[in-house]
Amino acid sequence: MSGNVPLSNGDHHGASNGNHKNGTSTDSNTLLVTGGAGFIGSHTVLELLNLGYNIVVIDNCVNAQKLPNNNMPESLRRVQELTGRKVTFYLTDLTDMDAVKPIFEKHRFLCIIHFAGLKAVNESVLYPLLYYQTNLIGTLNLLQCMVDFNISNIIFSSSATVYGFPDSLPITEAHPVGKCTNAYGKTKYFIEEFLKDQAIADPSFNAVILRYFNPIGAHESGRIGEDPSGVPNNLMPYVAQVASGKLKQLSVFGSDYDTKDGTGVRDYIHVVDLALGHTAALEKLIQGSIHGLKVYNLGTGKGYSVLEMVAAMEKASGREIPYVLKDRREGDVGEVYADCSLAAKELDWTAERGMETMCRDLWNWQNQNKNGYQHDV
Amino acid sequence: MSGNVPLSNGDHHGASNGNHKNGTSTDSNTLLVTGGAGFIGSHTVLELLNLGYNIVVIDNCVNAQKLPNNNMPESLRRVQELTGRKVTFYLTDLTDMDAVKPIFEKHRFLCIIHFAGLKAVNESVLYPLLYYQTNLIGTLNLLQCMVDFNISNIIFSSSATVYGFPDSLPITEAHPVGKCTNAYGKTKYFIEEFLKDQAIADPSFNAVILRYFNPIGAHESGRIGEDPSGVPNNLMPYVAQVASGKLKQLSVFGSDYDTKDGTGVRDYIHVVDLALGHTAALEKLIQGSIHGLKVYNLGTGKGYSVLEMVAAMEKASGREIPYVLKDRREGDVGEVYADCSLAAKELDWTAERGMETMCRDLWNWQNQNKNGYQHDV
Repeated sequence: MSGNVPLSNGDHHGASNGNHKNGTSTDSNTLLVTGGAGFIGSHTVLELLNLGYNIVVIDNCVNAQKLPNNNMPESLRRVQELTGRKVTFYLTDLTDMDAVKPIFEKHRFLCIIHFAGLKAVNESVLYPLLYYQTNLIGTLNLLQCMVDFNISNIIFSSSATVYGFPDSLPITEAHPVGKCTNAYGKTKYFIEEFLKDQAIADPSFNAVILRYFNPIGAHESGRIGEDPSGVPNNLMPYVAQVASGKLKQLSVFGSDYDTKDGTGVRDYIHVVDLALGHTAALEKLIQGSIHGLKVYNLGTGKGYSVLEMVAAMEKASGREIPYVLKDRREGDVGEVYADCSLAAKELDWTAERGMETMCRDLWNWQNQNKNGYQHDV
Repeated sequence: MSGNVPLSNGDHHGASNGNHKNGTSTDSNTLLVTGGAGFIGSHTVLELLNLGYNIVVIDNCVNAQKLPNNNMPESLRRVQELTGRKVTFYLTDLTDMDAVKPIFEKHRFLCIIHFAGLKAVNESVLYPLLYYQTNLIGTLNLLQCMVDFNISNIIFSSSATVYGFPDSLPITEAHPVGKCTNAYGKTKYFIEEFLKDQAIADPSFNAVILRYFNPIGAHESGRIGEDPSGVPNNLMPYVAQVASGKLKQLSVFGSDYDTKDGTGVRDYIHVVDLALGHTAALEKLIQGSIHGLKVYNLGTGKGYSVLEMVAAMEKASGREIPYVLKDRREGDVGEVYADCSLAAKELDWTAERGMETMCRDLWNWQNQNKNGYQHDV
């Protein structure tokens, strides 16, 4: 029964910083953000606080920073500092229904934004059960609480990984899904199916599935960013650590793809643009203009190669980034980029931050926080 | 913590009825059968007892008979009567890990045969969360116990429903899977993926997935059979109840399919043949000739139309079976039948009971048990 008492109580009447929902603090203004201490979660919490929402975060902090004395993950402590507003934080695992339910008894949520989940592809191949247990059971518990406590709205953190090998480019939301080759991707796909079926069964249930392409960058303050534990799994955190001298050189897997320079091409999106995609979806849900299930790609629609990203980071950091070309990795795709016109049309949302800004902000974060949150508190 | 003490203690040294494992009763001879009180489960338990295995059944009896005073579901009480052997029975829900774990602490299982799960397509459309919770969490708990208690072998009760609309006939195991349109079918598919990924992650893990076509019939004694609660969802139990006069007439959905007589064609398999498919897979697992993940269709390879089935049941029962032709139901497929050559080759198993036997045994069961197990104890 851990987590029934918030580790850090939010000030529900705390200062708000001037946006349109400014100062309103009724129960109907409260959102649950699961995984809110993580990379995308913390950036989204920041934007939501700036819009005047009250935020309750559930996070087990399994991938996040150790909790300092104030019982608040460092990412959220800094979000509070940046926004001048408080977050209510529960150190709780979503798979523990006995701990989750009392949180729903205590708060009345207008919407759930569900980021929580394990997310490392390679780890999911080694420990598939852990991935299925954590991501699926956690989500099923959340959905049960939505039923039990009459909550109608959820925004789910999905991934372009559900598309598998692309049949055609750019990838629209109508592209076939489900051919994932690892447990991580399958959990995203399976959860999408849970939501789809629940929306069919319950006409009052509204769900927005956001399929992320490759989120990078950091908040422009350099105070919050991506803090991978151990050696980064994703390209750009790795590149940033090579630029900072923490890692020696980058391995580029595959230089003979049918792409502009032979290296893999991806659709990178600034994490702040991604966070704003969530606030855009939330506003539409609250306005009542989204009913049932909707799916949106969140990307920029532009593909950049690994070598282009390396060059952009060299420019942003003023450092050399040594790399070595290696063979392709099994399962990797040559080129992936999104068609994001549906989100533009229906959510009035478009990614606005370009590659230069992504690299500048990533470098700013990396440079200010050489060891992430761990040793720079 | 319900279910820690078996409701009915098995006689582990009970009489055995003369097959090759006759009388041996060591721990390594013990199998866990989940959902063992159900239709296919109870027929499989009977065959396994006849082979000399000790059987522990976990069943929540949600679809089964009420427990009489001896704390044993009527299906299993009759299986004990038919075999002269005892079953150890736990009235336990697999989703309740606190109740499941002590069962693994108490018994050492050579293999798990996993039937437990909700199985009504229509109900799964209405209550998808219930289906995902019950079938997925139950299975994840079982798989976690396999890891925790070093159990290597599992046989999983899957379904031809994972194939969705057939691309080609007969359906082989290589046919694409995953295009299920209801939560029931998706749970079967998702669990197959759990097993697949676990087999990749853990080289000591062996799983046999059996994809059932349409199990009908009953044990030739007429003592055990299918006992649907309420109005039957499946064709043949419905037909049997029309023959017995319990239901008035049959609705045949679709008479304009591109089949021999316009009505839907399916691959029906006698439940005893199906049960023997499990014992065949078990023997191969125990002999060590199956490693990792294997998938087998269990059917007869023959397709019969609805009207052929009606005629066969009229003949078997000597009763008229009134029917009315109706429009197709959305989502129904015209024709489905299996290629079962892989099971013949690798499991030395072929369905041996023809349509006449299936209908004779179904009628025998129906005739002897007009209200199933409920009122004929």
